[in-house]
Amino acid sequence: MEAEAGRRRRRGRGAEAAPQPSRDVNYRQLRNPFPQMEVFPADQIADMHETALRTLEGLGVKVLLPEARRIYAQGGARVNEDNEMVFIGRDMVEAAMASAPKSIACRAGARRRDFTLELGSLVFQPGAGAPNATDLERGRRPANGQDYLEFLKLTHHFDVFQMISPQVEPQDVPTNVRHYFTTQAQMELTDKFPFFFSRGTPQVMDCFEMLSMARGLSDDEFRGNPHCYTIINTNSPRTLDIPMAQGLIDFARHGQMSIITPFTLMGAMAPITVAGAITLSHAEALAALTLTQLANPGAPVCYGTFTSNVDMKSGAPAFGTPSHFQASLAAGQLARYLGLPWRSAAGSASNINDVQAANENQFGLWGCLMSGATVIIHSAGWLESGLTVSFEKMICDAEVLNMVAELCAGAQAGNSEIGFDSALSEVEPSGHFFATSQTMERYNTAFYEPHIHDYANFGTWTERGSVDANHRATGVWKEILANFEAPAQDVSRLGALHEFIARRTKAGGAPPES
Amino acid sequence: MEAEAGRRRRRGRGAEAAPQPSRDVNYRQLRNPFPQMEVFPADQIADMHETALRTLEGLGVKVLLPEARRIYAQGGARVNEDNEMVFIGRDMVEAAMASAPKSIACRAGARRRDFTLELGSLVFQPGAGAPNATDLERGRRPANGQDYLEFLKLTHHFDVFQMISPQVEPQDVPTNVRHYFTTQAQMELTDKFPFFFSRGTPQVMDCFEMLSMARGLSDDEFRGNPHCYTIINTNSPRTLDIPMAQGLIDFARHGQMSIITPFTLMGAMAPITVAGAITLSHAEALAALTLTQLANPGAPVCYGTFTSNVDMKSGAPAFGTPSHFQASLAAGQLARYLGLPWRSAAGSASNINDVQAANENQFGLWGCLMSGATVIIHSAGWLESGLTVSFEKMICDAEVLNMVAELCAGAQAGNSEIGFDSALSEVEPSGHFFATSQTMERYNTAFYEPHIHDYANFGTWTERGSVDANHRATGVWKEILANFEAPAQDVSRLGALHEFIARRTKAGGAPPES
Repeated sequence: MEAEAGRRRRRGRGAEAAPQPSRDVNYRQLRNPFPQMEVFPADQIADMHETALRTLEGLGVKVLLPEARRIYAQGGARVNEDNEMVFIGRDMVEAAMASAPKSIACRAGARRRDFTLELGSLVFQPGAGAPNATDLERGRRPANGQDYLEFLKLTHHFDVFQMISPQVEPQDVPTNVRHYFTTQAQMELTDKFPFFFSRGTPQVMDCFEMLSMARGLSDDEFRGNPHCYTIINTNSPRTLDIPMAQGLIDFARHGQMSIITPFTLMGAMAPITVAGAITLSHAEALAALTLTQLANPGAPVCYGTFTSNVDMKSGAPAFGTPSHFQASLAAGQLARYLGLPWRSAAGSASNINDVQAANENQFGLWGCLMSGATVIIHSAGWLESGLTVSFEKMICDAEVLNMVAELCAGAQAGNSEIGFDSALSEVEPSGHFFATSQTMERYNTAFYEPHIHDYANFGTWTERGSVDANHRATGVWKEILANFEAPAQDVSRLGALHEFIARRTKAGGAPPES
Repeated sequence: MEAEAGRRRRRGRGAEAAPQPSRDVNYRQLRNPFPQMEVFPADQIADMHETALRTLEGLGVKVLLPEARRIYAQGGARVNEDNEMVFIGRDMVEAAMASAPKSIACRAGARRRDFTLELGSLVFQPGAGAPNATDLERGRRPANGQDYLEFLKLTHHFDVFQMISPQVEPQDVPTNVRHYFTTQAQMELTDKFPFFFSRGTPQVMDCFEMLSMARGLSDDEFRGNPHCYTIINTNSPRTLDIPMAQGLIDFARHGQMSIITPFTLMGAMAPITVAGAITLSHAEALAALTLTQLANPGAPVCYGTFTSNVDMKSGAPAFGTPSHFQASLAAGQLARYLGLPWRSAAGSASNINDVQAANENQFGLWGCLMSGATVIIHSAGWLESGLTVSFEKMICDAEVLNMVAELCAGAQAGNSEIGFDSALSEVEPSGHFFATSQTMERYNTAFYEPHIHDYANFGTWTERGSVDANHRATGVWKEILANFEAPAQDVSRLGALHEFIARRTKAGGAPPES
């Protein structure tokens, strides 16, 4: 395994022999190079938008938080306090569409980790929100604090994950102090853009304070740019619950970013058609978007959807399907109709990191890439339709994302690349190009070097133990964790953070709202 | 396993319960719905074409077959008989580009199996040309006649494989009669468009005669359309060997189709850059194309490439890499420059049907799809960079291809799909759509039904034995083979075919040329 471990080292960290020129790649700030695909003609997209407006005006949205209903009412919505229904006029939606920023400059813990969200940029997040973790050594279990920390380290390790996602729930950490645990970890172990759950105003305020403390931000500096984000799921169909509404308001008022994502399954909590499900998702996203802009016009907000289908025989969710792909395309068309950055999602229904898991995840990924998604969540590690995140799958999917990132860099076909003199005319018929001038200049840097894919022939691979990619991935994540080094931090700021957490914990923490 | 087996039945063959409306899909005649991606700007593509012409004029191609050199010379090429070099002028290439048909109507054994090859159409072939076969029950072995027949049946089973490919070599069949075995099998077990190897004129003439006999075609009918095809690999760099040159001439003179595919690996038998490797591939393809058009102007010919990179540390081939993806894009741009139908290829370097195999194959596949490839070969089952075809991988990859075929059909967003009245307004906030009018109309036909992907939850999946996709695939291919029914054939024609084979075998068959 020694040779294997050496071979698997990341580019730039040196190979077995002499130092070699490292490849000049930047996976941190990507632009989407793929042409955008349309599933519906423009007039049908306009009809879907129009139907969403009609839905908000005529059918309304149930809003459980009184403060949110007040904000909607002050903005001109018709509100029925008896049944908590809010009817949102198209003028309100259009004003919100106009004030929502088209470009969002996200500030991480280090300038090289900053990125901009706008149509055309491309950001990946690993799979998120799972109650369980799994790997080949420890098996499937309810996720715990150690799992949370390990996934965070893996997320930090791969440049291609530009945002931190809440990969798993640390279920052994009490819910009233869990946000201290996850925030401290994000502040200490990574300088990437952090995530906070919207589980009520008290927790969110704690998180904002901890972030400002750890990053050394004044209140003005904090509010001046998004330094963190939350994800808002509506309760489809047409319901906005209390913690989600609080999150929209709190993040907007503090200039922090909400990613609004109705999570709908065609045939279950959404219409059975792509067009119907995305129209519903769009209506719900517009309702939430409107709330953010009423709370603070110009607040950074990312449009989103996550729509796939169920298996109509069993009612089970399915991901990486043709309908999922088409739903991403339709959502992308609507996002471009709005002009807003937006998120979509890959994912898999498979129960383990197998061929199904790989094929579903990558199929869904290409739907996101060709729909021009700005943020692609669940792009690595997500199994069981979101119930589990897998260590091995995260490693395997990161390979695919790295290869996509390589494509973002493009290629050249100038004279030196075409190489009539430096390659083509140097080699006789049936000869080889191993020693041409062009090859000698480029052999160390020409090609992407995988961390999990293995090019050994069958004999060599068999001699090495016939280890499949899934089992090789165990060695990769263990090596990353063993060698993990957190980015340098300001010790005094972290001390203040620790003191804050100790004090707040002693005072009982902040239980989640429901 | 009974329920599983039932669940896996193909759509249209009925489910467990009452008869249900089958989904109206056509995977036989597909159009590529994906937008085309460009890796190089148009002026660089023109430079690559120009450099290819310069290569053919100035550096030349080594042509081992005297007859081919004669044809090139008669067409105006400068030929050096001492070193077998042929220097092809751009006027000759341009004349060939002008006479090669832009659209090729391929005639199969049944009209529903016919298809047209032109830019915009989309045809899949399973992995081809491997010396070995593998499956989880019988292991990896030199491929034999039974393997050939079984792969042929699997290829026939899935509509999404519109062409027959030579998946594996039946190594237990002597080479002087192997073409009788493979032709008889293709005539008896499938009505799809057949493949013949170009292993010398005697074998090819035998194959043409057998095909005409089995399909009941007069000589004029046979020559009037392509009824079969061959694949021509140049010996890169810049060499055309004897059987390949004979194949180009024989297929062209009989109006049958050649798919011209330089198979090049960047950094080994081709330049290390995408631009250089594709320029070489393009030059070689143009040389072969020119020979077909000199032999018979207007002969059906499909442009092609198969270019990936090697691992520069080991020299091992790699597939499904970023460079492979970009090579497909560049070849697609050159094919559109010519206006010709063209083939590209997916594939994997993995040694087994694992996550690497799935991810490489699908990554390469999207490169082909986004490059507008007309024919995508090695799209299912291909392992070990082509040394093995896997039964299980063929089943797993066919799922991905079926999902791509579903996307070819597109989707609608008319009033009934958006469903304001039939869905959105029928459901209260937080309700469900299981029973809306729209759902009731569509629940049997809305979604693609997989043959290998499993949507059972973790508990159910565990109760069923925790079987991964790879092992489930074994059950699927065995069931397909157990239930295989060959399409109806004309018995008297097959009798004549058998008689021909017996007679020719007795006379010693036809050894391959080399």
